[in-house]
Amino acid sequence: MPPQSVTAALLVIGDEILSGRTKDKNIGIVADFLADLGIDLREVRVVPDSAAEIVAALNALRHRTTYVFTTGGIGPTHDDVTADAVASAFGVPLIEDERAIALMLQRIQPEDLNAARRRMARIPQGAELVENAISKAPGFRIGNVIVMAGVPAIVQSMLAAVAPKLERGTRTVLKTIVVGNMPEGAYASELSALAAQHPDLAIGSYPSFVDGKFANEIVVSGKDAAHVEAAAAAIHSIIAKLRAAGKDKYTIT
Amino acid sequence: MPPQSVTAALLVIGDEILSGRTKDKNIGIVADFLADLGIDLREVRVVPDSAAEIVAALNALRHRTTYVFTTGGIGPTHDDVTADAVASAFGVPLIEDERAIALMLQRIQPEDLNAARRRMARIPQGAELVENAISKAPGFRIGNVIVMAGVPAIVQSMLAAVAPKLERGTRTVLKTIVVGNMPEGAYASELSALAAQHPDLAIGSYPSFVDGKFANEIVVSGKDAAHVEAAAAAIHSIIAKLRAAGKDKYTIT
Repeated sequence: MPPQSVTAALLVIGDEILSGRTKDKNIGIVADFLADLGIDLREVRVVPDSAAEIVAALNALRHRTTYVFTTGGIGPTHDDVTADAVASAFGVPLIEDERAIALMLQRIQPEDLNAARRRMARIPQGAELVENAISKAPGFRIGNVIVMAGVPAIVQSMLAAVAPKLERGTRTVLKTIVVGNMPEGAYASELSALAAQHPDLAIGSYPSFVDGKFANEIVVSGKDAAHVEAAAAAIHSIIAKLRAAGKDKYTIT
Repeated sequence: MPPQSVTAALLVIGDEILSGRTKDKNIGIVADFLADLGIDLREVRVVPDSAAEIVAALNALRHRTTYVFTTGGIGPTHDDVTADAVASAFGVPLIEDERAIALMLQRIQPEDLNAARRRMARIPQGAELVENAISKAPGFRIGNVIVMAGVPAIVQSMLAAVAPKLERGTRTVLKTIVVGNMPEGAYASELSALAAQHPDLAIGSYPSFVDGKFANEIVVSGKDAAHVEAAAAAIHSIIAKLRAAGKDKYTIT
């Protein structure tokens, strides 16, 4: 039986990420969540609070992956246009949803359910709600698109709510080989030859620098744990051989 | 004279971001850098280490914005395919560049310039180099596309190198109004009316939660500082009025 491939894209919606004012945390949160379910995240896009741009991105992404997750733009203020855009992309009306109103009334008094808050109960017709344990106003799912808030704690709550209903794939197994203070150029040729022998694996080399020294890592990943282990062992041997030859005495000047 | 509009897109290249293994820092770094130059970041995409996907994303983005910046995939290992993809997108050959070799030899000995390291000197024909003070192997610029490494410290070095050659726009002025413990629903209607009066400004409301209380902020941004100041003052008045009416006594249960 071939490993199941379940895929996703993420659409992050928000002027505040593009302006640099807010440093995104949702990409990492969603990526970790999906990896845990064996769902492969294939692409992320960040677009502004613009209905036209959200529609264009959604329509580009939603036919290419099993799921599309969105974050941001479902609050009560005028800059929250995601629900409008999703309804438009699916060609369905956006209607005030009684289930959403009921959820919101678990937390606020009826007299506080003003026009702005009612905006948060506008849900595309036919969508399922995604509950939000933090502030109650729900996200929703329509077709393969799961629409969530932008606040990271609420994203985590909504992901937990939607998780039981998602198709799961074969988890990708990752093994990290800590290379340390050896430049990529020292091991790149042998790593490339090894990668060519393992077309079912992704082998990546990730350089970083700490106090003028390399702190490199190599990551092997794939759906077959035994193949990943075998390749990781081969990489350990390559690095040990190069280390014995003194290739790990390297300082950046 | 109307304010100049200079725009950019960012393409983050790397399996490690999509798998969740690495939490991206480059989006925030590039967003802050561009904001400082008055260049408006319009879209970000994150794609895997796949030449076909890089080419498709580059060709979708490079005709829409003044600049496209890319991060990642220009190292010496087999998974570094960005230079190949950029050359392919521009329809030019990828050639070993003598200038790049000379830069690399400032840091390594000629006998260490192996085949893998020479990969880092492969530059699309006609590109300008972008210097890298950290590890010397350069990025490059071809047309309106600026290709940088993935290591955040090197991204910062390359941005500093390319900055003097970039066209600058009118900086966006941001004013933040700290709302604190008041739910968005309390001020959304008045904020929406104010936003409708200021079509040249972006007014965003950003909820967050700290210890069960809202810690909301409203951000006004635009190219005209006086307009931004006037709208910020109006928002301060709205919030002060609501606070006087007791709308800031709100705990999430």
